[in-house]
Amino acid sequence: MQKPAVILLSGGLDSATTAAIARREGFALYALSVDYGQRHRFELEAAGRVARAMSVKRHVTLSIDLGRFGGSALTDAIDVPKDRAVEKLEQEIPVTYVPARNTVLLSLALAYAEVIPAADIFIGVNAIDYSGYPDCRPVFIEAFNRLAALGTKAGVVGRLQFQIHTPLIKMTKAEIIRRGIELGVDYALTHSCYDPDPAGRSCGRCDACLLRLAGFAKAGLKDPLEYQMD
Amino acid sequence: MQKPAVILLSGGLDSATTAAIARREGFALYALSVDYGQRHRFELEAAGRVARAMSVKRHVTLSIDLGRFGGSALTDAIDVPKDRAVEKLEQEIPVTYVPARNTVLLSLALAYAEVIPAADIFIGVNAIDYSGYPDCRPVFIEAFNRLAALGTKAGVVGRLQFQIHTPLIKMTKAEIIRRGIELGVDYALTHSCYDPDPAGRSCGRCDACLLRLAGFAKAGLKDPLEYQMD
Repeated sequence: MQKPAVILLSGGLDSATTAAIARREGFALYALSVDYGQRHRFELEAAGRVARAMSVKRHVTLSIDLGRFGGSALTDAIDVPKDRAVEKLEQEIPVTYVPARNTVLLSLALAYAEVIPAADIFIGVNAIDYSGYPDCRPVFIEAFNRLAALGTKAGVVGRLQFQIHTPLIKMTKAEIIRRGIELGVDYALTHSCYDPDPAGRSCGRCDACLLRLAGFAKAGLKDPLEYQMD
Repeated sequence: MQKPAVILLSGGLDSATTAAIARREGFALYALSVDYGQRHRFELEAAGRVARAMSVKRHVTLSIDLGRFGGSALTDAIDVPKDRAVEKLEQEIPVTYVPARNTVLLSLALAYAEVIPAADIFIGVNAIDYSGYPDCRPVFIEAFNRLAALGTKAGVVGRLQFQIHTPLIKMTKAEIIRRGIELGVDYALTHSCYDPDPAGRSCGRCDACLLRLAGFAKAGLKDPLEYQMD
């Protein structure tokens, strides 16, 4: 029997690669997507496509309107920044930062994992290309592992040792893409852009597009997505 | 100027008392209620009444359907246990346990706090009457404090030192009720029952009712709520 694992699936490049890695490690995948009021809803459609391609056991999409708190360009009426230098993206916390996002996402994944029950949770965080997000760092993930062990019935009285897996945490975007290609990920199914046009075509100029395009360029590959300037 | 604080407001006796304590300590209250698919929706109406009585600055109610994961009598089609001995309630994890509930609630409170911004978060957890819930223990709260410091922009690059306040954590239910009465809490506005009738009257027999009634009895007071057997 395959061991079950919860995989946080945003529909982006990183989470699709993470799902492929978890599948290759032999886990049965229980995908969780969260509609947290993000402006880039095409990501959620991409999550559904990736879930099907990865033959997940189950795919749950939860809605939670974090936009009601305000405070982020991803959920609020703040302009998404464009055309920034890639080197700069790797140093600053962008306005697209969503407050406490990974804390919220991992909490929900933990609740799902406790019910299944599954000890293993995969998240595609990356401390290299997005070093500006504090909740992508290994020290944060370790703190969450501790919280999960202390804050659940399954962890305290059951025998479930929760573990957050972050296979991408120390990989560059180019390495992630190469690994995904090896594992057969179809990146045409994914979506990264923070500011797509109504047809869902990527802008090619927001932080997410710039990092994605730079990653494909460094990997010596062509991004299969359609861009507005194509 | 009053310092802002996020207060998790379920509409129950404990969170109403916690809100009164936070107000007495001089905080401006930003209430957060979460509709996580619980069967006892009358609690959310009670949260609105309590928020008004406490003159909160703002009251946000977020919906998130944890019931889609299954696994709890509060969100699932499992019978709520009745007529259990109060001593037993203090030792066991009941089926009304909601997976990773306080982890989820505190994550959402943290996201709200980061946006306001507010360093202080109040939650009415109690390690005495509900010792069976692992996510009500001081060791869990300490782990969350650490996570909050590591996982937020405000905590890492800002100067916000998040602190989870748990003023009730070591109080008995009778002590909580006495303190609330001193602070002018109107417990008629609150709701605790897991299994109310369609009119919202408490059953008097579920774990929450039994602990509440025992608390009022020990405090030498009469619960102002209407019960089905009255």
